[in-house]
Amino acid sequence: MSEFHVYDTTLRDGAQQEGLTLSVQDKLAIARHLDDLGVGFIEGGWPGAIPKDTEFFRRAASELTLRHGLLAAFGSTRRTGTRACDDPQVRALLDSQAPVITLVAKSDARHVRKALRTTPEENLAMVTDTVQFLRAEGRRVFLDAEHFFDGFRFDRSCALEVVVAASQAGAEVVVLCDTNGGMLPPQISEIVRSVRESSGATLGIHCHDDTGCAVANTLAGVSAGATHVQGTVNGYGERTGNANLVTVVADLELKMGKTVLPPGKLAEVTRIAHAISEITNVPPHSRQPYVGASAFAHKAGLHASAIKVDPDLYQHADPQSVGNDMRMLVSDMAGKASIELKGRELGFDLAGDRDLLTRVCDRVKDLEARGFTFEAADASFSLLLHEEVNGARPSFFEVESWRVITESRPGSDAVSEATVKLRAGNERQVATGEGNGPVNALDASLRKALMPVYPELAKLELVDFKVRILESSHGTDAVTRVLIETSDAATTWESVGVGANIVEASWQALCDGLTFGLIRHGVLPR
Amino acid sequence: MSEFHVYDTTLRDGAQQEGLTLSVQDKLAIARHLDDLGVGFIEGGWPGAIPKDTEFFRRAASELTLRHGLLAAFGSTRRTGTRACDDPQVRALLDSQAPVITLVAKSDARHVRKALRTTPEENLAMVTDTVQFLRAEGRRVFLDAEHFFDGFRFDRSCALEVVVAASQAGAEVVVLCDTNGGMLPPQISEIVRSVRESSGATLGIHCHDDTGCAVANTLAGVSAGATHVQGTVNGYGERTGNANLVTVVADLELKMGKTVLPPGKLAEVTRIAHAISEITNVPPHSRQPYVGASAFAHKAGLHASAIKVDPDLYQHADPQSVGNDMRMLVSDMAGKASIELKGRELGFDLAGDRDLLTRVCDRVKDLEARGFTFEAADASFSLLLHEEVNGARPSFFEVESWRVITESRPGSDAVSEATVKLRAGNERQVATGEGNGPVNALDASLRKALMPVYPELAKLELVDFKVRILESSHGTDAVTRVLIETSDAATTWESVGVGANIVEASWQALCDGLTFGLIRHGVLPR
Repeated sequence: MSEFHVYDTTLRDGAQQEGLTLSVQDKLAIARHLDDLGVGFIEGGWPGAIPKDTEFFRRAASELTLRHGLLAAFGSTRRTGTRACDDPQVRALLDSQAPVITLVAKSDARHVRKALRTTPEENLAMVTDTVQFLRAEGRRVFLDAEHFFDGFRFDRSCALEVVVAASQAGAEVVVLCDTNGGMLPPQISEIVRSVRESSGATLGIHCHDDTGCAVANTLAGVSAGATHVQGTVNGYGERTGNANLVTVVADLELKMGKTVLPPGKLAEVTRIAHAISEITNVPPHSRQPYVGASAFAHKAGLHASAIKVDPDLYQHADPQSVGNDMRMLVSDMAGKASIELKGRELGFDLAGDRDLLTRVCDRVKDLEARGFTFEAADASFSLLLHEEVNGARPSFFEVESWRVITESRPGSDAVSEATVKLRAGNERQVATGEGNGPVNALDASLRKALMPVYPELAKLELVDFKVRILESSHGTDAVTRVLIETSDAATTWESVGVGANIVEASWQALCDGLTFGLIRHGVLPR
Repeated sequence: MSEFHVYDTTLRDGAQQEGLTLSVQDKLAIARHLDDLGVGFIEGGWPGAIPKDTEFFRRAASELTLRHGLLAAFGSTRRTGTRACDDPQVRALLDSQAPVITLVAKSDARHVRKALRTTPEENLAMVTDTVQFLRAEGRRVFLDAEHFFDGFRFDRSCALEVVVAASQAGAEVVVLCDTNGGMLPPQISEIVRSVRESSGATLGIHCHDDTGCAVANTLAGVSAGATHVQGTVNGYGERTGNANLVTVVADLELKMGKTVLPPGKLAEVTRIAHAISEITNVPPHSRQPYVGASAFAHKAGLHASAIKVDPDLYQHADPQSVGNDMRMLVSDMAGKASIELKGRELGFDLAGDRDLLTRVCDRVKDLEARGFTFEAADASFSLLLHEEVNGARPSFFEVESWRVITESRPGSDAVSEATVKLRAGNERQVATGEGNGPVNALDASLRKALMPVYPELAKLELVDFKVRILESSHGTDAVTRVLIETSDAATTWESVGVGANIVEASWQALCDGLTFGLIRHGVLPR
């Protein structure tokens, strides 16, 4: 019995999603999260074909330290009529330094003829040559048999020959791909079982969600004998997306009793799925199985009283097992509990005071309804607790007014200039700062105004800035949410601002970020 | 062989979705769309329990003319220790005038005991009495057996007795519900088959997506003999949602060869799914199978060359069959083939000129490496093609300079004011506009400056604005990417701008959006 592989292709096939563009920096950050989740293989991209992917593998070699996962480089078999060792694309796979190479090969006779414009014999030779060459160079090789299921239904022997050729040449796994995504589970079951029996190869399964069955198809593949599952975090991918690896892994562990992640890692999957959606900037799907914000949320009514008697009667799985929470949408019970926990995390003991908890809970609900999010903005939430617990937040400065001007003349870059007027240290401070955008300019002027009074600010730095336009609802104007990350070299914290005006939202988040930094450094208002 | 039922529960179970609230007006509008799609049954709500639903049935009686669908009212069996004819909730079902009543009953022994606090015998009596009473009143009755699969696995005979009791009392269909959504397809298959064999009842299937398998579970139910499928449009519903009826219907017709909608209706499903999401105000999911905007969109260069040869090689179904379209996305993964196809879509014939194609392809790759994205910005891509094909884009105006000021004083909202200086119509134009953010202000001033020369701009409107901060790479500063959507009421188009300064990036996208709009309306530079 071969080992079970969880193979993530978020960075390659997931990146094919419409509207999703990942920088090399994004890819490295996602790879770290995937490794943290404990997937066995992380497909990084297609070196040699996509310059950004070549760069990813170059930087990964020096910057990525993986504990669980092995990097895989994706690429195609040698071109027709060449030798594998002479093919620059095959060379690029070796140059990537990835310990695993996943080759893609045609396995549908129609694609061999019409897309590749070659014979089935040459197609098999391409598979055999390339696998053998890479094996001889010391790499582990997986083979993605593209359009396998369509191919098998059209010309069974042509499809099977590719599996056998790859396996005999030394491919460790042959991955049967439902590239167009048109299969249903019974077809997957039958074909995987048949291929396993007639080829004896170790098989993988790669599905897309075009019939809404990507997860079920993947599980059907596993039940029929596949020991390698491919998918993407949050189901990212071209068209309707790939099999959602998060759902697949949770189903395998919780419903099919297979251990496929390192111990304890399933409970991190909600956090990691959300962290990755922050990087991709694709808003998380609230109805996503297991990890969605609504996945364990119950509307009051028929269920509410029974849930109090026995929550397991109304839950298919324990939300804690995937690091998620049950939420009651009308009762604020769950809300208070998590606010209490969060407060403790930030150094506030709220447990004793029910009125206080209710007040904080109501304010969070009200602010979140207006577009705030405190999940990713501990600094702003901590300031809110200061206000509710101590009556007010520490006031380091009092703003009189601010103004930003952004100007451009053709032929030169736009410049931004901000002027801030405020009171701090019992004096009026007026300062002007410049930046390559309105937020940088505001940041520069705010620091300049405060520095004479709070020289500790020299240690703090604005390190990241995220903007999301929140959909307008029912005819109101859209609002802008800005998250700002501030760092003191040792740690970082995030603050949030919301408003119709993007510059004003940024200003709120900037002020929160600096205020929290001063508190954290033990500075008192002067 | 009984007739096949498509039973929609968007208005009842779908409305349990977090954040989804439907007015009576909304419900009537959705019911018309569902009838237009040709579903057999439209569950309108729970009259007697939810005042809005009582009102829905009252108004439906006079305002709804249905051609295909029958209205169903949902409600529970009589209370313990009463007679069905005396139970006000059962009376309310009759009063709704709905020709079909769908009763919900417990079928899990644990729920009977813990939630209903009664005996299995009384539970059966409640089912029998209520079904018989409603049948005697001339209504068709369906019975939803709640928590059926969990119940069957816990206490098979208790669950089966409910099916038999309902069926013998005159329920036309007994619907087996995976209420908590924890099942996988093999379990559904096995249980539906077993219940069918041992009860002989006509069965329905009702699934939720908690394991990501709602669609596959529903299809498994049908393969095992269920002839009634329940689901919601776009998969709305509590937690992870119900089985997506759109996907189920398309799979049944296109993949399983069953005719379940009236002739020609499947081709309307994309339009209707989007129309309903307009009413629910839940943004349509672009990756939704069959009907999503991305469902037939192709990005990979690998695929594009083959799509030119034979589109069916890369599509699991004909997009026209569900009223959707194939789209090509332009990105740095795209090769020449996809750029050629995209050009054709935008009215440029690039096929003859290999040098031109190479030039465009290189420019796209270069611009995308700098942070641009063209797959969601057809307008900017079309202007790029103008430049490469005709040497330059039409020049409607020449910008001299622009400036935006955003100002705030505590206690009042920030305001933005922009001034633009440009040449158009052989004259210098200077205009100032205001807005609730820098981009709105720039938009206002740009229009004001151009309107005297291009009154056609009055038709165009900025409808959406998206911002993404792209991570810095190689130690350079982060850049900002702005996507702007402009509309002329009939259609919309997107343009892109990129720069270190968010305001400058927005300005580029604004100018592209208006320029493309003028070209599209056949305006010539004046």
